[in-house]
Amino acid sequence: MKRTYIKDLKEHIGKEVTIAGWVDVRRDHGKLIFIDLRDMSGKVQMVVLPNHEEAHKIADTVRDEWVIEVRGLINERPDKMKKEGLNGELEIEVLEIKVLSEAHELPFEKDTELNLDTYLDYLPLTLRAKNKKAIFKVQAVIVQAFRDFLIKENFMEVQAPKIIGADAEGGAEVFEVNYFENKTYLATSPQFYKQIMVGVFEKVFSVGSVFRAEKHNTTRHINEYTSLDFELGFIEDHHDIMEIENRLLIFMVERLKEECQTEFDLLNAEIPKVPEKIPFLKLKEAQLIIEKEFGDDCLGEPDLEPQHERWLCEYAKKEFNSDFIFITHYPVKKRPLYTYEDENDEGFTKSFDLLFRGIEITTGGQRIHNYEKLVKAIEKKGLDPEKFSFYLQAFRYGMPPHGGIGMGLERLTARFLGIKNIKEAALFPREINRIDTLLSRSK
Amino acid sequence: MKRTYIKDLKEHIGKEVTIAGWVDVRRDHGKLIFIDLRDMSGKVQMVVLPNHEEAHKIADTVRDEWVIEVRGLINERPDKMKKEGLNGELEIEVLEIKVLSEAHELPFEKDTELNLDTYLDYLPLTLRAKNKKAIFKVQAVIVQAFRDFLIKENFMEVQAPKIIGADAEGGAEVFEVNYFENKTYLATSPQFYKQIMVGVFEKVFSVGSVFRAEKHNTTRHINEYTSLDFELGFIEDHHDIMEIENRLLIFMVERLKEECQTEFDLLNAEIPKVPEKIPFLKLKEAQLIIEKEFGDDCLGEPDLEPQHERWLCEYAKKEFNSDFIFITHYPVKKRPLYTYEDENDEGFTKSFDLLFRGIEITTGGQRIHNYEKLVKAIEKKGLDPEKFSFYLQAFRYGMPPHGGIGMGLERLTARFLGIKNIKEAALFPREINRIDTLLSRSK
Repeated sequence: MKRTYIKDLKEHIGKEVTIAGWVDVRRDHGKLIFIDLRDMSGKVQMVVLPNHEEAHKIADTVRDEWVIEVRGLINERPDKMKKEGLNGELEIEVLEIKVLSEAHELPFEKDTELNLDTYLDYLPLTLRAKNKKAIFKVQAVIVQAFRDFLIKENFMEVQAPKIIGADAEGGAEVFEVNYFENKTYLATSPQFYKQIMVGVFEKVFSVGSVFRAEKHNTTRHINEYTSLDFELGFIEDHHDIMEIENRLLIFMVERLKEECQTEFDLLNAEIPKVPEKIPFLKLKEAQLIIEKEFGDDCLGEPDLEPQHERWLCEYAKKEFNSDFIFITHYPVKKRPLYTYEDENDEGFTKSFDLLFRGIEITTGGQRIHNYEKLVKAIEKKGLDPEKFSFYLQAFRYGMPPHGGIGMGLERLTARFLGIKNIKEAALFPREINRIDTLLSRSK
Repeated sequence: MKRTYIKDLKEHIGKEVTIAGWVDVRRDHGKLIFIDLRDMSGKVQMVVLPNHEEAHKIADTVRDEWVIEVRGLINERPDKMKKEGLNGELEIEVLEIKVLSEAHELPFEKDTELNLDTYLDYLPLTLRAKNKKAIFKVQAVIVQAFRDFLIKENFMEVQAPKIIGADAEGGAEVFEVNYFENKTYLATSPQFYKQIMVGVFEKVFSVGSVFRAEKHNTTRHINEYTSLDFELGFIEDHHDIMEIENRLLIFMVERLKEECQTEFDLLNAEIPKVPEKIPFLKLKEAQLIIEKEFGDDCLGEPDLEPQHERWLCEYAKKEFNSDFIFITHYPVKKRPLYTYEDENDEGFTKSFDLLFRGIEITTGGQRIHNYEKLVKAIEKKGLDPEKFSFYLQAFRYGMPPHGGIGMGLERLTARFLGIKNIKEAALFPREINRIDTLLSRSK
């Protein structure tokens, strides 16, 4: 079979081709049977005339989602019959149909608006919808842009392990793995390994799964996600990291414009503009603004509430015409043990969150590179440095000033596309009561 | 600090620059102190003269692996002093040194040949060696070539979940995860998800961690590795998959030639030649050859022993001048439940292994796409189709003939580079008694 992809049909008008795909819709019009065929590249309308007896007999039996191979003639439609969109100018006259795979009756009508649970119960079917495919095409381009930018900037790609020996960072909720006779855990981030690798390659990045045993079942949380991380040495301070992230986002958005405009249009989403220099505020300054502009007194709070993040994004849009804003200098006590304290702002760190359209999409900052300081920071969190001995080697044996960021691919996808529930931005989301099927049900 | 990378020094001979990196070696020659400085881009020799008093005082204190920033003058060496290799034509006269980070005394001399356990105990330090960095540079390029080839061929990148609800494939040794109140498992492959995604995008690939609870502590096994997978629909049979893998390997090897010749030379390894068409044999044919050429009667055995794989590679080299050979048609009973049985060779499958330099590096083949057949295949393995209900949806609702491959990144890296123990081809290898540190020790 020399197969022609549906998107290329218009180059072969008047000719016979073989195409293959899924029956998207099938309609009887008296003796005429119309089938919309869908393949990875697009959709096309086909008509089966009664005079092609064998094909007509088969067309009579096919139903939605059957997989078929079709030999047909590409006819140009008369002008007044032409339609907007892909292949609106042509129609396939079916000469021969071969059924590659039948399908059972669908559990619901195709264009039904489904509730989230039904959508998730039937992912192998529901992911086939055009607007769902668009989400994951965008996701693929985001992750490719992330990597391409960093490779271009001479970052080395590294594979960080997912099974770890200790819940090293403490605090974060971790999953336990029964590892032969030992208790081990699933990594909540590649943080320690990417720092170790700065000691080896200076500039590194990784893309991989991380796991959080959070019991919250919210629109912001999933229990397994893909973390995009980079880390580099020989920085002055966290502003170097913010500058790289700024350029990364510009690169990413350019790539999305080139490759995903159709998907954004389909999903009624707007590709954001990334300013040349994303504005930044210290947490303290941000809190003053919240008080002054929005009337909520949160001065001295160690973190921002979701509502505060939304307000600050509103403010950034109004004040700086930016969809993005960095908030820096979160307090030491709210940040992980490796976070670098600002020598000129005691109790506060050279760390930052990036807010975008009302929500935090990255956390980053400078890290402690001095061995003795890091040991002290571990002790200050009430943890035992002995348990960090492997990680600490990187610092014992000479580590440059360094820093980096981590961002969740699913959250980023959701924000770019204006998807409210992160579960719709993960292909097979893991939640407290669901691994593909509901867990209670599968027992 | 406007930093110059060491590889670019030769463009600035006669000028003053700022460089930064690790002290690779430090030597006293009377009043002269020589320091080889190492950064991500290379190495350079520096000399500290006594007349630069402040710098000389600091140079006197620095030791191996200290991280320093240096302002210096790039002097061209007199002709007779020039050396081979990077920066052999120049030397830095140090004007100023700033210590960015001190290092503790190293646990062993730098060029000591270490046994594997010591190497693994000190990875944050030992990975900094030139020949170790070379391995992981090659690994990064392999994974990038894998993706770039498939993106070019219009495969969609997907993120497959790692926590799964059931040990669906049976057989393979799996790790258990305590998932809130439920027993779940770590995926041993993205197989089911990539098949599901063929129903969505036709052509997909994924790169991600997989986990095998194998108790073997051998040079061929690790318990966590990075799996490179692709899967596509609308194939004729397994030969279509082999053809794509063939082209993928050609592409990969070209990329390695462009970007990693230095690393291969350093590691005394040869970049393999991939033939235009990799030879293939049925298992039965291969067993006849083993009997005839090497005198071992293994006819009727369901699989190849490691020695058989080595012999077949020897044979392929001699007979076809190929480093690669496909072996097809393994018996149904030795292959996973989804493997497609050859209609014309009952009991044998349209599956294959690819052997390279004496070892299997990929497994692939055509999969069952018919729902009823797949249900039967599951039952035949003594498993309960009910437990596969999520996966089976993909087939209930129309699935094209399809197939794909999976390959382990670490094993591939090891084979390309002639590394005997796979643990040296994984950054932070997980083994039965080691997660970074020995597990018995960390209890």
